[in-house]
Amino acid sequence: MTEPARIRGVLSPVVTPFSADLTPDPARFLAHCRWLLGQNCGLAFLGTNSEANSLSLAERLGLMDALFEAGLDTRRMMPGTGSCALSDTVALTRHAVQHGCAGVLMLPPFYYKGVPEAGLYRYFSEVVERVGDARLRLYLYHIPPVAVVGITPGLVERLLKAYPTAIAGMKDSSGDWDNTKTFLDAFATSGFDVFVGSESFLLRNMRHGGVGTISATANVNPAAIHALYSGWQRPDAEAQQQRLDRVRDTIGRKYLMIAALKETIALYAEDAAWRSVRPPLLPLDSGERASLAAELAVIGFTMPGLARAAAAAR
Amino acid sequence: MTEPARIRGVLSPVVTPFSADLTPDPARFLAHCRWLLGQNCGLAFLGTNSEANSLSLAERLGLMDALFEAGLDTRRMMPGTGSCALSDTVALTRHAVQHGCAGVLMLPPFYYKGVPEAGLYRYFSEVVERVGDARLRLYLYHIPPVAVVGITPGLVERLLKAYPTAIAGMKDSSGDWDNTKTFLDAFATSGFDVFVGSESFLLRNMRHGGVGTISATANVNPAAIHALYSGWQRPDAEAQQQRLDRVRDTIGRKYLMIAALKETIALYAEDAAWRSVRPPLLPLDSGERASLAAELAVIGFTMPGLARAAAAAR
Repeated sequence: MTEPARIRGVLSPVVTPFSADLTPDPARFLAHCRWLLGQNCGLAFLGTNSEANSLSLAERLGLMDALFEAGLDTRRMMPGTGSCALSDTVALTRHAVQHGCAGVLMLPPFYYKGVPEAGLYRYFSEVVERVGDARLRLYLYHIPPVAVVGITPGLVERLLKAYPTAIAGMKDSSGDWDNTKTFLDAFATSGFDVFVGSESFLLRNMRHGGVGTISATANVNPAAIHALYSGWQRPDAEAQQQRLDRVRDTIGRKYLMIAALKETIALYAEDAAWRSVRPPLLPLDSGERASLAAELAVIGFTMPGLARAAAAAR
Repeated sequence: MTEPARIRGVLSPVVTPFSADLTPDPARFLAHCRWLLGQNCGLAFLGTNSEANSLSLAERLGLMDALFEAGLDTRRMMPGTGSCALSDTVALTRHAVQHGCAGVLMLPPFYYKGVPEAGLYRYFSEVVERVGDARLRLYLYHIPPVAVVGITPGLVERLLKAYPTAIAGMKDSSGDWDNTKTFLDAFATSGFDVFVGSESFLLRNMRHGGVGTISATANVNPAAIHALYSGWQRPDAEAQQQRLDRVRDTIGRKYLMIAALKETIALYAEDAAWRSVRPPLLPLDSGERASLAAELAVIGFTMPGLARAAAAAR
């Protein structure tokens, strides 16, 4: 039996739409996931930008099931399954693996700070053992600006030695290219797949042996990011990278990223319900909404087909 | 109808015993809670030292139910109910309030860092509104070394204005007396009850209008801490404070606090099962165990009645 091809390319940490009572809205979620798949974008749903940690276990499982039951391609899915509680992480990971997801993206347990590397090893090791499924492909999620607790090269080395098949790669959201390069240099040739956490690093990642990006902005600009992913060896790649950076700066520099992504979708899907975020986050205020819309218009930003796809879900 | 007396004094963030498979062990938990109540110590179970964030929602509710079903005095209980997910926090808080708990200790949602005060206000406000029970007494939990996200005076002021009965006080685990004093000076006279997160600050807290302490070490040294709480105006209070500090230093300075507390209980309860911690934490190694035991013997530390109480649970 040959091993199925690993997931690569551009993945979106899919933002989670909410109903008026702040419960997840599976219909809008499904419509957005379908639109993303149609733009060559995989689904790293239940991530940081998905407000996954603001959802209960049952709410997370419910969003997984919405995609599974609709028959979306699980080979294009890498849901986030890492929680502070070992039991939740195991439950989510097992559910994803049993439904054929290409991988899972796993935060370290992030409540206790300053835990020893051996403690984090013990955690991931328990998860792999308890899931106990040869199909598991685990991507470690390094996002120190948010989780504070991070993934170190020493931890990866130890895990790769113990679980060479299950430990498939990482997402590096450190925002620090030197850190990404350390992991690429140390592990990329041993089949450890590095995704960068922002398309700003996509061209550099591809040039140094990385496999793609899992980026917030892929929620709204997936096709253009995929064009750079698939054409990174073309002569205009630098210019493409600059155009991607301009879109990312417009959305993410002045505003809280998650609220700005949802406002962008609300705008282009012509659907104000998309603005809703769960506390402790806040939606953009009316002044921010107006300035973001004006700035997106200035750079000629579009989301082709989104309004039609979104209308079909209502 | 007169309002029931507010909970005060010494509370223990009860450590959670685990079985060999790392599931919570309700029998040992119940035995330890009974011993603590017998030492004049209230139960702030499901806190940081309880590894509550390493437990699923179902596991937390299960530990609550173990105490409720055994008929322990809920007027001496302040379980931790704060999670990153609004839905989990509401479920836990509602369960505690409906069973008559004197209060709940609530972490802010701690995944997203740098969220605006208005976002935290929105979170706590949603919880109070959704629980919708006049019996709710909410204690805000400030522990920036762990949660990173903290409780500010501006947030307390806003919440107190909107919910003067529900917002009952806070636990300050900043480890910074100046911070505690800021909250005492601003809010203690308006019925906002400040607990310090370490008994090292207990005497100062009582002298400045505080109401007690919720401290890790109360798991193992409750009676002595309570003696200072009830006798803080006596002439030997400073000497008592120094004796408490010596015990705390012995257990918490060189070792990871949670593992050292569990080792101390294992030692005095003569029950090695108490050593277990959930990943990402690690138990003390054999060298640390030996040195902790020796150091506790040197200071003449005891846990009166623990071995008998623990044996009854096995």
